[in-house]
Amino acid sequence: MKQIDKLSIAAIRSLCIDEINKPKSGHPGVALGAAPIMYTLYKYHLISDPKNPTWINRDRFILSVGHGSSLLYAMLHVCGYKVSMNDIKSFRVLNSLTTGHPEYGHTPGVDNTSGPLGQGISQAVGVALAEEITRATYGNKIINHYTYCLIGDGDLEEGLSQEAISFAGHQKLNKLIVLFDSNKVTLDGDLSLSSDEEMKGRFIASKWNVLKVNDGNDVDEINDAINKAKKSDKPTLIIVSTIIGFGSKNQGTSKTHGAPLGVEDGKFAKLSYGFDHPDFYMPKEVYADLKKTFGARGDKAYKAYQKVLASLKKNNKKKYELLMDAFSLNVNKYIKDNVTYPKETNEATRKTNGNLINKFAKEIPFMLGGSADVAGSVMTKIADSTELTKSNRLGRNISFGIREFETAGVQNGMLLHGGLRPYIGCFLVFADYMKAAIRMSAISNLPAIYLFSHDSIYVGEDGPTHQPVDQVAMLRSIPNVIVYRPADARETYGAWKLALQSKKTPSCLILSRQNLPLLSNSDDKKVKKGAYIISKEKSKKFVTVIATGSEVSLALEAKAKIKNKIDVRVVSMPSQELFNGLNKDEQCAILGNCPCRCVAVEALTSFGWHRYARHVMGIDRFGLSGSGKDIANYLGFTSDNLVKLISEANKYGK
Amino acid sequence: MKQIDKLSIAAIRSLCIDEINKPKSGHPGVALGAAPIMYTLYKYHLISDPKNPTWINRDRFILSVGHGSSLLYAMLHVCGYKVSMNDIKSFRVLNSLTTGHPEYGHTPGVDNTSGPLGQGISQAVGVALAEEITRATYGNKIINHYTYCLIGDGDLEEGLSQEAISFAGHQKLNKLIVLFDSNKVTLDGDLSLSSDEEMKGRFIASKWNVLKVNDGNDVDEINDAINKAKKSDKPTLIIVSTIIGFGSKNQGTSKTHGAPLGVEDGKFAKLSYGFDHPDFYMPKEVYADLKKTFGARGDKAYKAYQKVLASLKKNNKKKYELLMDAFSLNVNKYIKDNVTYPKETNEATRKTNGNLINKFAKEIPFMLGGSADVAGSVMTKIADSTELTKSNRLGRNISFGIREFETAGVQNGMLLHGGLRPYIGCFLVFADYMKAAIRMSAISNLPAIYLFSHDSIYVGEDGPTHQPVDQVAMLRSIPNVIVYRPADARETYGAWKLALQSKKTPSCLILSRQNLPLLSNSDDKKVKKGAYIISKEKSKKFVTVIATGSEVSLALEAKAKIKNKIDVRVVSMPSQELFNGLNKDEQCAILGNCPCRCVAVEALTSFGWHRYARHVMGIDRFGLSGSGKDIANYLGFTSDNLVKLISEANKYGK
Repeated sequence: MKQIDKLSIAAIRSLCIDEINKPKSGHPGVALGAAPIMYTLYKYHLISDPKNPTWINRDRFILSVGHGSSLLYAMLHVCGYKVSMNDIKSFRVLNSLTTGHPEYGHTPGVDNTSGPLGQGISQAVGVALAEEITRATYGNKIINHYTYCLIGDGDLEEGLSQEAISFAGHQKLNKLIVLFDSNKVTLDGDLSLSSDEEMKGRFIASKWNVLKVNDGNDVDEINDAINKAKKSDKPTLIIVSTIIGFGSKNQGTSKTHGAPLGVEDGKFAKLSYGFDHPDFYMPKEVYADLKKTFGARGDKAYKAYQKVLASLKKNNKKKYELLMDAFSLNVNKYIKDNVTYPKETNEATRKTNGNLINKFAKEIPFMLGGSADVAGSVMTKIADSTELTKSNRLGRNISFGIREFETAGVQNGMLLHGGLRPYIGCFLVFADYMKAAIRMSAISNLPAIYLFSHDSIYVGEDGPTHQPVDQVAMLRSIPNVIVYRPADARETYGAWKLALQSKKTPSCLILSRQNLPLLSNSDDKKVKKGAYIISKEKSKKFVTVIATGSEVSLALEAKAKIKNKIDVRVVSMPSQELFNGLNKDEQCAILGNCPCRCVAVEALTSFGWHRYARHVMGIDRFGLSGSGKDIANYLGFTSDNLVKLISEANKYGK
Repeated sequence: MKQIDKLSIAAIRSLCIDEINKPKSGHPGVALGAAPIMYTLYKYHLISDPKNPTWINRDRFILSVGHGSSLLYAMLHVCGYKVSMNDIKSFRVLNSLTTGHPEYGHTPGVDNTSGPLGQGISQAVGVALAEEITRATYGNKIINHYTYCLIGDGDLEEGLSQEAISFAGHQKLNKLIVLFDSNKVTLDGDLSLSSDEEMKGRFIASKWNVLKVNDGNDVDEINDAINKAKKSDKPTLIIVSTIIGFGSKNQGTSKTHGAPLGVEDGKFAKLSYGFDHPDFYMPKEVYADLKKTFGARGDKAYKAYQKVLASLKKNNKKKYELLMDAFSLNVNKYIKDNVTYPKETNEATRKTNGNLINKFAKEIPFMLGGSADVAGSVMTKIADSTELTKSNRLGRNISFGIREFETAGVQNGMLLHGGLRPYIGCFLVFADYMKAAIRMSAISNLPAIYLFSHDSIYVGEDGPTHQPVDQVAMLRSIPNVIVYRPADARETYGAWKLALQSKKTPSCLILSRQNLPLLSNSDDKKVKKGAYIISKEKSKKFVTVIATGSEVSLALEAKAKIKNKIDVRVVSMPSQELFNGLNKDEQCAILGNCPCRCVAVEALTSFGWHRYARHVMGIDRFGLSGSGKDIANYLGFTSDNLVKLISEANKYGK
């Protein structure tokens, strides 16, 4: 091992100690344990240009152990990214660049948001998959990079990791190299408290290549392993034996996991590295060496790439533009706003969804997607394309398996990589399995598209375990998520267009299993307002009924029944979030009444609806097994009862 | 293979065909494929008494492939459970015994609710764990049974299964025998579309015993494997090669997964079994044979057990009563209502939680619990007990690992088994990872206890990935879940008592990381009303501020600031659900104002609060990395802004 490597690692570890000691907050365990892994990766392998940290053909580094943020920031700092020593000194301070866990889009050089364990590895799989697809699409001069990921014991205890590695092994993502910081210690103590798993066997069973590094402090051994991994025809796990909190008096124990070392132990650790310097000191040789290695490598590669790109622009402008559009998610150029529905249309919105996917997929070459084994039910298949497999990277239909969480995690990864406009499908009730990944889309500002069908008790015979009640409220309560529950084909079209156009916000489309008639006044363009009047009142005094999805028809039915007694306005509200974004006047104009004279109806929990209406007809219990119609009647979810609620609302003065 | 076995399996398969054909709904694939497995298990192994289907020492059968319900019902029917031929004919009809997916507590002989894949296997692990613990507690004359579980390819694609098998292997649950209906087909097609996993290797890596049955139609081979499994010192997976939809023209394909065979193909299949009889025909020999085998075995065992029980009652009444109390979750006899808090108490409610766990654990011998690797943070440890391990089944602290979903699934399993009063802990933000299991507690009427700490932006430096915003709304929107967000130690005590006393409803306690002062008028007894006046107004015209958790103090602070201008009532609302359960008059008496003159404040999403208040101070965005105080100030979540909102509410006439 070279002297400079020893010095650099000592300096980086020492910087992490100071970084965490200053705010008295952070996780030294992984930072001190895994520093040589990160260092070896960045110095000897990773190709990226700190001056152009979003360069599309850079190697990606996905930190799955997000609590190792201090190490990542230290590494980015010494590598010349725009993370200054002052930023390092502001670790975990409000509005600093160096947030508690890494945040994508916030800090230069940070390729993913992480912290919630297991998610990084699923993102890395998505990134590596996107690399394969875009490489196959544009050729290996344009896209050809590795995806590295650092994981810990916690990531591998999460079931999501199994879903992800199983999918990655199946897809033979051999440019994915996962570095496992194997310190065998977790927050509560030794890993042996909760696990006896043999990781090698587990990964081999999922068709991975597995390598071992016995000494996690040995740069050469780590380096060799990465070199070997690059030659594998399978994804590679490198199990690196490390010592948590290396150098601390408490090294090797959970005491170092999440508490700062403090000044005294920090000093002790630094001396054990042979590093006797003031706090936040970084030797010039370290910067210089990394500039010569990491910096020069990236600079050269980036410059060479610019030539390739210029040549592409010159020789194949169409391909060049497609590449640019794909990586900037510029879909508007491609979408043709040419859909009309005949009056007699009466189809499940999941079916409309299937048709729209096929329309948009024809228009947008970089659109692709799949489902968690419900392609036939949610209708996510692109009919004139093929299955994406290890031997067919141009297939646009992805079988994610019965692994909802991974399905969502991989979509996040594809969006982190860029160059693709993905979507995924799942039964609405099983959105529960992927909730944490949906939140991750939202927090990372990734415009993921979630297609959730079988959207209420009208699922029918499969019963309460398969009938959503609470899921839409769950989705609506996540910040930065737009939920659409379209009432018919036209609204579904409107929602799909908006979802495709989104660049920073995930969209959830809530789709029916059962047929829904085309409504005479429905409007795809008005979906962007979140709500609009679909059936006007006749007089000045009226009751407003707000409905979504299948219940807009129910509201119109109730209006027809009561029209001689009470005047009714029906508002279709496909998206609460978009409606909430309107100004007060616009909102008032659409609703036309104060909440006392508003009724809301949705065949889901009433939770969340009282913001708009004092009178809510919802389903505040689990469903039942039976036909959808029988269940609705049994629960009193009928137009007759809606009429009663309208009468109730009519008692309130305007 | 015996002739009667052949006939019986043919008859059971044929019955499943009719059962599904009648409502034109159900899943013949697994039913026809796995019939010999179920038959062999029930005829030759399972010890249970259909006359006493809740007998505490019966073998448990956990169906993880819940869509195989038709097969389970057919099996229960022929085995003499109270599932009549008329019930079979009412499959999937509203309010029938034979629901679309099995529902625990609804159908005699059904040991778990299932359908959402992966959850059954995690429940089975919990059941097997509970068996070990209760056997160690009461001796193997009292508890000594096997736990069988039928799983499919889908269960094993779900990451939850890996969490569960890893935990089961670690705990060496050798009385858990999992039968794997390995038909290599899923809803969308062949399993090979999404997976290349070698299951044997995967389970061996998790320290399981693995056996193979090459012919899933061979009763003797299945029988042999189960016999071998019973001798293992590890949990056993039996991989049974089966053919999905066996007998159908479409056997071996996904076409048989979820669509009825129909009359013609049904007839074809029956003839292929050599079974040429009218629909719903069951030969008398089949009933008679199972009565002689399954029936006689269970009858004998049950009767012998009654003698053991009588002897226990006579010779060790204390132990007998403990057993009875434990299996009926009778905790009231044990709980001493003897907690008081000194005025100067100022502690995080997670800390109060830790103290209460230790108090209650001393009183209730059958209480135990653990966490998903956050025992130290959520404070779930019973100090004077030990770790539950493979060699110490009387340890009351369970390390579930960083596997939130399994943690919840195993708790569900322990409750399904009975004899234990478990609780589990996790950071609130990671409730996302276990949402589907919480829903399963609720749908199965299991009084699970979820302890969720680190309950808001006040988590601080760990940043938005670790700061809950949306999770409490998610929990509140699930039917049959009681969510408590106590304001101080006393309310935490009140919530804990109610959670322990619950017999059919899961409880979630939302706990603070930061210290909360004891409020002078807080009341543990009033928690059961869901809300109560914690600070009275002085006059007739006042504004009501509704708050929960840490925000009750904030509301009192705001009241103090504005008291000379506007009169304020402060209502502490630890539980919306319990408040919703009050009658209208009680609700009005507590709130004292219509929603227009009510303000709600909670450091979480405002979603769901407008039911009670037109004016809501919440956090409708993700948090930030920084100190809790800095974040609150930055977001304007301050008593000054609450004062402004109170002034706003005061503009509305009473």
